[in-house]
Amino acid sequence: MLAERNRGYFEAKNIAALNFVSSPGAGKTTLLEKTITALKEEIPFFVIEGDQQTMNDAERIDATGVPVIQINTGSGCHLDSVMVNSALKQLSPDPDSILLIENVGNLVCPALFDLGEARRIVVISVTEGDDKPIKYPTIFRNADLCIINKTDLLPYVQFDVEKTKEYARRIQPQIEFIETSATKGDGMESWFDWLRRQRSA
Amino acid sequence: MLAERNRGYFEAKNIAALNFVSSPGAGKTTLLEKTITALKEEIPFFVIEGDQQTMNDAERIDATGVPVIQINTGSGCHLDSVMVNSALKQLSPDPDSILLIENVGNLVCPALFDLGEARRIVVISVTEGDDKPIKYPTIFRNADLCIINKTDLLPYVQFDVEKTKEYARRIQPQIEFIETSATKGDGMESWFDWLRRQRSA
Repeated sequence: MLAERNRGYFEAKNIAALNFVSSPGAGKTTLLEKTITALKEEIPFFVIEGDQQTMNDAERIDATGVPVIQINTGSGCHLDSVMVNSALKQLSPDPDSILLIENVGNLVCPALFDLGEARRIVVISVTEGDDKPIKYPTIFRNADLCIINKTDLLPYVQFDVEKTKEYARRIQPQIEFIETSATKGDGMESWFDWLRRQRSA
Repeated sequence: MLAERNRGYFEAKNIAALNFVSSPGAGKTTLLEKTITALKEEIPFFVIEGDQQTMNDAERIDATGVPVIQINTGSGCHLDSVMVNSALKQLSPDPDSILLIENVGNLVCPALFDLGEARRIVVISVTEGDDKPIKYPTIFRNADLCIINKTDLLPYVQFDVEKTKEYARRIQPQIEFIETSATKGDGMESWFDWLRRQRSA
């Protein structure tokens, strides 16, 4: 596969490539929309959107004004390095930019496919239950950051944030955490700071 | 694969086998817990639980007092007919019972694997967004029933129930819908009635 070729491409152009994985509906696209809208004057963003079907997510990103490519996987369950390599040729991201890769909504299969990214970010929603890291360990094993999203819904659901972190650390002791409500704005400054650090890293 | 063998087994013993698919954390296990607790004196239930890791779900079902087998798929992303066939040999469900099969939390891959079930039920949570049927069409194409769960959270999220139904019907015009809050109890009587009809079907 072409993960190493993609990694070389990112290295050559000093691009920070981030692979966002989550269950369907954890809020990845909203997180990216809000992030791009807030930071696009400061950081050049390029986006690859993965979905089984529809251009919906690409259209939402396109409305923010940054370059985006949609990959439809059909019955496929994840992005792979060949798809990303082909998208890179069309997208041609600028040097020193951040490439946001939104994977197909799937907490299982994308775990096994290296896209050549610098960092893997797993997004979980507080509505999904706090046991996700131990029930889906493979995807947490290679994750650098876990974004715990939809924290505005915490008053209405059973979800123990500390228990989730403890479970995730059992699988991946170095994993970092940021708690956000992408729709309401809580925690977004911490996330923006994390993102800025990737660019200078 | 052994889907047809499983179907023959169910036919021979007049067992209604139901395959529950959803994203991680859509509430399948809670729905099954509440269903079994309410109806176990009326209907003999047997349960097969699928997860990548942990016995958590089987333990939750076991606490209701009905026979349950946990299948751990490891890095695998779905149950298949061979796993179910092997579980059937251990579980030996009674004639005229209902077999509840909770698939691995994954809105993508389980779509492609026939387990020999009579009905496929896709559970979506209102926190996941109303565009799921068109973004993940494969899993809706073979679904008989869509349970729209966590309706108690509707006041706090953007989710248009009618739009979801319209999207799902575009993929599968015969699909039925039931709206539930498994935790609060709303809509559960409609679901119980649907379940009773499967048994006499």
